[in-house]
Amino acid sequence: MSRPVPVLMGWYFVMAANTGWPGCAKSLKGVILDLCGVLYDSGEGDGVAIPGSVEAVKKLKASDLQLRFCTNETQAARDTFVAKLQRLGFDILVSEVFSPAPAAVAVLKERALRPHLLVYDGLLPEFDSVDKTNPNCVVIGDAAERFSYQNLNEAFRVLIGLEKPVLFSLGQGRYYKETDGLNLDVGAYMKALEYACDLKAEVVGKPSPTFFQSVLNDMGLQPHEALMIGDDLVNDVGGAQRCGMKGVQVRTGKYRPSDESHSTVTADGTVDDLAQAVDAILDQRH
Amino acid sequence: MSRPVPVLMGWYFVMAANTGWPGCAKSLKGVILDLCGVLYDSGEGDGVAIPGSVEAVKKLKASDLQLRFCTNETQAARDTFVAKLQRLGFDILVSEVFSPAPAAVAVLKERALRPHLLVYDGLLPEFDSVDKTNPNCVVIGDAAERFSYQNLNEAFRVLIGLEKPVLFSLGQGRYYKETDGLNLDVGAYMKALEYACDLKAEVVGKPSPTFFQSVLNDMGLQPHEALMIGDDLVNDVGGAQRCGMKGVQVRTGKYRPSDESHSTVTADGTVDDLAQAVDAILDQRH
Repeated sequence: MSRPVPVLMGWYFVMAANTGWPGCAKSLKGVILDLCGVLYDSGEGDGVAIPGSVEAVKKLKASDLQLRFCTNETQAARDTFVAKLQRLGFDILVSEVFSPAPAAVAVLKERALRPHLLVYDGLLPEFDSVDKTNPNCVVIGDAAERFSYQNLNEAFRVLIGLEKPVLFSLGQGRYYKETDGLNLDVGAYMKALEYACDLKAEVVGKPSPTFFQSVLNDMGLQPHEALMIGDDLVNDVGGAQRCGMKGVQVRTGKYRPSDESHSTVTADGTVDDLAQAVDAILDQRH
Repeated sequence: MSRPVPVLMGWYFVMAANTGWPGCAKSLKGVILDLCGVLYDSGEGDGVAIPGSVEAVKKLKASDLQLRFCTNETQAARDTFVAKLQRLGFDILVSEVFSPAPAAVAVLKERALRPHLLVYDGLLPEFDSVDKTNPNCVVIGDAAERFSYQNLNEAFRVLIGLEKPVLFSLGQGRYYKETDGLNLDVGAYMKALEYACDLKAEVVGKPSPTFFQSVLNDMGLQPHEALMIGDDLVNDVGGAQRCGMKGVQVRTGKYRPSDESHSTVTADGTVDDLAQAVDAILDQRH
């Protein structure tokens, strides 16, 4: 007498354990971490490290996993915010960090586009090598208080005056958390300009597949070998999943309880914070 | 011997002449005019009357047509901007003008909602009678320079903190023309908040069918008896057409040549300015 059902159930259990969270950690070769809301909360001065995250990064670096950082940070040039993270105690190098501005500069040069920039002052040095005379496109980043009516109007007028308006958005986040509360992110202003000019922006940064792929290329990994950990369900988790990676959300930063019943994106796992995620990953591998 | 073809062609020609522009003017009983971009261009001080428009309004008032004004003006209370139009020479009364703020006040009271207001200072008196303590919804109008990052963030935080966020937008215009150029309108900021909070705003004002219907009710007319003249193809012309009215666009104000090949809205007629529209209407009726 055969006993097919228990065998099938057993096989299914093994599959689920290996492909779900945290079972999938067994076959991982690399981990990609978002920065703001995962490692630290931004705010006055350098902001504050999220408890346990400095130690969690140390543990990942001491493991056999490759580690990269993938951020939509556009309020400062890369060397500036990496220095800030180092001051907060993180073991992190500029070469390990992927951010939208350098990616945008590459696209602008490739297509011979001259941008009108609506970005935070601190990001301007990233665009030093780009011709900005007589603009034929607009680039917006998280400009925060520089998103005044006057500045947004100026960007709008450049776009509406072009025969074929081109808008680049450095990320498309809806909002992010600072120590004083939630703040509107660049995505909201991207939507405002898209509507006013009847166009579709080109997003540089997460969740653009091109952007995630550049990180995978740098690690020399296939998507299924990598896991993204972020606080933004749509841009971190959903974006990584659409590229074939696993995506885990932390309950820090911009996390909201309603994310766990989102209509289109379901994280492979949800954890309290980065420390818990890293412990779960490393437990699976020992 | 019958001659069906010429008869049919003749019948068709008569129909087209009566239902198209300007033939439809024969059967009209009322005309609705947008204000900004049709009667005048806003800007420093009172702005400037568009040439011929003062005279055109006079001619309409002297005709047998009913006349109303329907505006998404939300930078000032109704009596203030009507006084401005009178100073520019227009024969216009407060009772003839329909604007979003009084309509919004009615909705707020009906639903016992307490608004957080992000509107131009000049509009605040319209909301004097409304309870604004402990807000459970947000109302935005064309706040112009009051659309600072800080103020938009404040409105965002009210919405994101509500269990069921409700956003009212006084109109949904993309941009409008002032004497110094094109300016972003409330619709752009509505889209920003919609995206950030993952909600759909309730539009009070054009192109809301409820709003147009209130003007028709005031005139006691059926939609097919009325014609809307505006500079905004989507909100004036398209909105009126969706209610069953005719819609004619003027080539003043925010008009752009690309409007004449728009993908979804085709005006019943396009004229250089209000003066030309009114002359064509009155010519048909004599």
